[in-house]
Amino acid sequence: MFESAEVGHRIDKDEYRQMRAQLRTALLDAQFELRESGRFSVVILINGVDGAGKGETVNLLTKWMDPRHIEAWAFDAPTAEDTERPRMWRYWRTLPLRGKIGVLFGNWYESLLLGRVDKHIGQAEFDQQLDDINRFEAMLKHENVVLIKLWFHLSKDAQKARLKSLEKDPGTRWRVTAADWRNFERHDRFRSVAEHALRRTSTGDAPWLVVDGSDPNYRDLFAARTVHEVVRKRLAEDAGGWVERRSAPPLPQALDERNVLNTLELDQVLDKKAYEAQLELLQGRLALLLRDKAFADRSLVLVMEGADAAGKGGAIRRVTGALDVRAYRVVPIAAPTDEEAGRPYLWRFWRHVPRHGKAVIFDRSWYGRVLVERVEGFCSEADWMRAYAEINDFEDQLVNAGAVVVKFWLAISEDEQLTRFKARETESHKRFKITEEDWRNRARWAEYQHAVCDMLDRTSTEQAPWSVVEANNKYFARVKVLRTVCERLEKALER
Amino acid sequence: MFESAEVGHRIDKDEYRQMRAQLRTALLDAQFELRESGRFSVVILINGVDGAGKGETVNLLTKWMDPRHIEAWAFDAPTAEDTERPRMWRYWRTLPLRGKIGVLFGNWYESLLLGRVDKHIGQAEFDQQLDDINRFEAMLKHENVVLIKLWFHLSKDAQKARLKSLEKDPGTRWRVTAADWRNFERHDRFRSVAEHALRRTSTGDAPWLVVDGSDPNYRDLFAARTVHEVVRKRLAEDAGGWVERRSAPPLPQALDERNVLNTLELDQVLDKKAYEAQLELLQGRLALLLRDKAFADRSLVLVMEGADAAGKGGAIRRVTGALDVRAYRVVPIAAPTDEEAGRPYLWRFWRHVPRHGKAVIFDRSWYGRVLVERVEGFCSEADWMRAYAEINDFEDQLVNAGAVVVKFWLAISEDEQLTRFKARETESHKRFKITEEDWRNRARWAEYQHAVCDMLDRTSTEQAPWSVVEANNKYFARVKVLRTVCERLEKALER
Repeated sequence: MFESAEVGHRIDKDEYRQMRAQLRTALLDAQFELRESGRFSVVILINGVDGAGKGETVNLLTKWMDPRHIEAWAFDAPTAEDTERPRMWRYWRTLPLRGKIGVLFGNWYESLLLGRVDKHIGQAEFDQQLDDINRFEAMLKHENVVLIKLWFHLSKDAQKARLKSLEKDPGTRWRVTAADWRNFERHDRFRSVAEHALRRTSTGDAPWLVVDGSDPNYRDLFAARTVHEVVRKRLAEDAGGWVERRSAPPLPQALDERNVLNTLELDQVLDKKAYEAQLELLQGRLALLLRDKAFADRSLVLVMEGADAAGKGGAIRRVTGALDVRAYRVVPIAAPTDEEAGRPYLWRFWRHVPRHGKAVIFDRSWYGRVLVERVEGFCSEADWMRAYAEINDFEDQLVNAGAVVVKFWLAISEDEQLTRFKARETESHKRFKITEEDWRNRARWAEYQHAVCDMLDRTSTEQAPWSVVEANNKYFARVKVLRTVCERLEKALER
Repeated sequence: MFESAEVGHRIDKDEYRQMRAQLRTALLDAQFELRESGRFSVVILINGVDGAGKGETVNLLTKWMDPRHIEAWAFDAPTAEDTERPRMWRYWRTLPLRGKIGVLFGNWYESLLLGRVDKHIGQAEFDQQLDDINRFEAMLKHENVVLIKLWFHLSKDAQKARLKSLEKDPGTRWRVTAADWRNFERHDRFRSVAEHALRRTSTGDAPWLVVDGSDPNYRDLFAARTVHEVVRKRLAEDAGGWVERRSAPPLPQALDERNVLNTLELDQVLDKKAYEAQLELLQGRLALLLRDKAFADRSLVLVMEGADAAGKGGAIRRVTGALDVRAYRVVPIAAPTDEEAGRPYLWRFWRHVPRHGKAVIFDRSWYGRVLVERVEGFCSEADWMRAYAEINDFEDQLVNAGAVVVKFWLAISEDEQLTRFKARETESHKRFKITEEDWRNRARWAEYQHAVCDMLDRTSTEQAPWSVVEANNKYFARVKVLRTVCERLEKALER
């Protein structure tokens, strides 16, 4: 992996000057076209050996480009904002808008590599996390993020020489710390761990690119040219009307007409009196659970999905009615804002991931990808097909960070929906709840049912199972929602 | 201030039920119309005596309204994210979008009141901060934020009775803490401090509304009706085509033709060789300053303004060329995103306020309000007239939180601009830098000059002075910018 970076590349001063002049203009032009096109963003990962010139090269790159459209992020020790959420939350926050470039030092590889060098992380867990990274990076690629992974390399001898020369110069002495020398002592182990990681995460879409850090001139030009070429290649592909051929295998359908929705008994019975009694008990139970001290390092992520008029809003109000207003947030999902639309699909949900001790209730959610976007053709078949796995990965991360993920599908019959639509049109204070779009969606009832069945099959996991709620009777539905939330929390908190 | 809240208001159960039913529908309707109109947002401040039912009432309000469009914020102990920025930063973050309602517990009044009760804050400082709050709240009002300030009151006897009754009930015992009893001991002092603060911050636009907390039924209905009435009143005003008559007195003009721009000697001389030598020295000096340990609890906010083609981008690149890419961020100001446009004008700048040890460079800035927005008529005369004071307040807060605020106006002559425009049209890699809009702006040269002179007069403060840079010679301008940044930092860091 590092062999060709150790052959002793050199660029002399005159060559350097000449090539630099060309590259600067070329990079600035490419950055301008990237901004004009606005079709993708660029994320540059900066990793490698200490002393190999990571910071210097990035400073140079940003000096050559337009500093208004490139952002660099270094990650200090995580604060409570970070540690109370999934590990990847802090990186999601830094993803640039389309048309922009982000440079990420000490990114998702850093602590993982050091953890393995220290042997805090075993080999199996290491490989597992590297594979998680592969899945994450594949998602970025599909979401129009061009990833450039630069590894700055130095041989052991070159590293030693570099640290010594930095120490000798009074202007750079401050940069060499005791930690650098400790890391140097572990050079061989670091190299071996890094090689394994680089091989395992060098995919066809996002291979690692190794930069020889031994000669500053060579290093800078090599890194700059690499960035330029990757961006140019993608611009040319876009300009040539190139479209990735993305197709997906067909999803199997049942041989008979039976599915998880049409075999439900939707008309459950619960009268108002029984409802009111149970509601009060369940709300009290839920209120206590969120005040339980075991909840102080957990969180609740509640997803409410269902057809139009299935009673999502009413069910949410019965849940929030039990909660202290300071402990929860309801996030209604409608059209994305422009800051959301310019980033990978899941970004708009990541920004609402709660801290410990808090609840977030999504009124519609990331499942829009495999429901409305699939049925209405707002995204390609390949996009919604990959979404099942991406969503499962997302929810896994939530659960691993302590969240209890509870997902509801409120199921009503086609007849019941019609009755409710008609009622809404006549009741004055509910008129705003019915629109042209609701009637249009209704015309695609069968397609939506099909999409829902696929969704339930593919995203109901042991950690984050779906609860299908028979919702023709609103009282029954609300009680079942509240009871399910209580039971899931009790199980998670071992109460 | 509290007299009429101590007459012993009571609502019996039947009255309560009847009034509640009406209010719930009315509140929900008002909330819906607010969302549909999208012309203003509502911020409800919740303050008052412990045990007066603040939390209960807000829980009820949110239960009655649509929880998707109301957000409540409680403020825990500040983290480093907060303490390294101006005190108001955390509150700016919570301002709701137009069409939404925000409820703020323990808002900007809380720590101030307690600090005065504790006597950590003297009377003069207390009054000064209350006046700062008045200015802030006046700004919110002008920016279409309807502020509802609710004070939950209890007499000393009623507070004691309330705390005891909470303690008696096993279901609420957890809510009474030792701190509550300590606060009770200071009831009289708290009341006296609060009365003073409430009087001083009860303005015609945002008066305090005192809620009698002694009877839960009365309290809830009173608070709900108050919120409903305030929102309804504003909706009615908007619907009636009502427009606030806002005018501003004319700004005085000089009696002769002399102004701060046309008396400048714009054609300074600096040749390339001298420039390169000075640039290197100054960049080194700046690099050291940002690494100085005294900078670890300061920050740098740099504002770059100037006519089109004045050389803002080039000057910024010479500054960033001296900095480590991890230590700064360049924020280009163009059209606001929809998340920005839906909030008070300064919100989009507050979100970029740096933490300690960091620099932010604004390429154009909040001064757009008194430049392009004034000249092009994008806001009313009253809007840009009040902006001078709002901007000064904003910059004061930055300075008080440790920021060094350095503001540049790059001044070029009308002839020099023409020369540069023409050059840009012919040089291929600069073509993207000239647009139709640039030519349109140029036609209003005199108006812009006038606006700039007013801006320099009204917003050059001792803490955050403007530096006008003679910029017909780019070399001279860049060196002057760098030298000024160095000198301002050296003064601030006492180096």
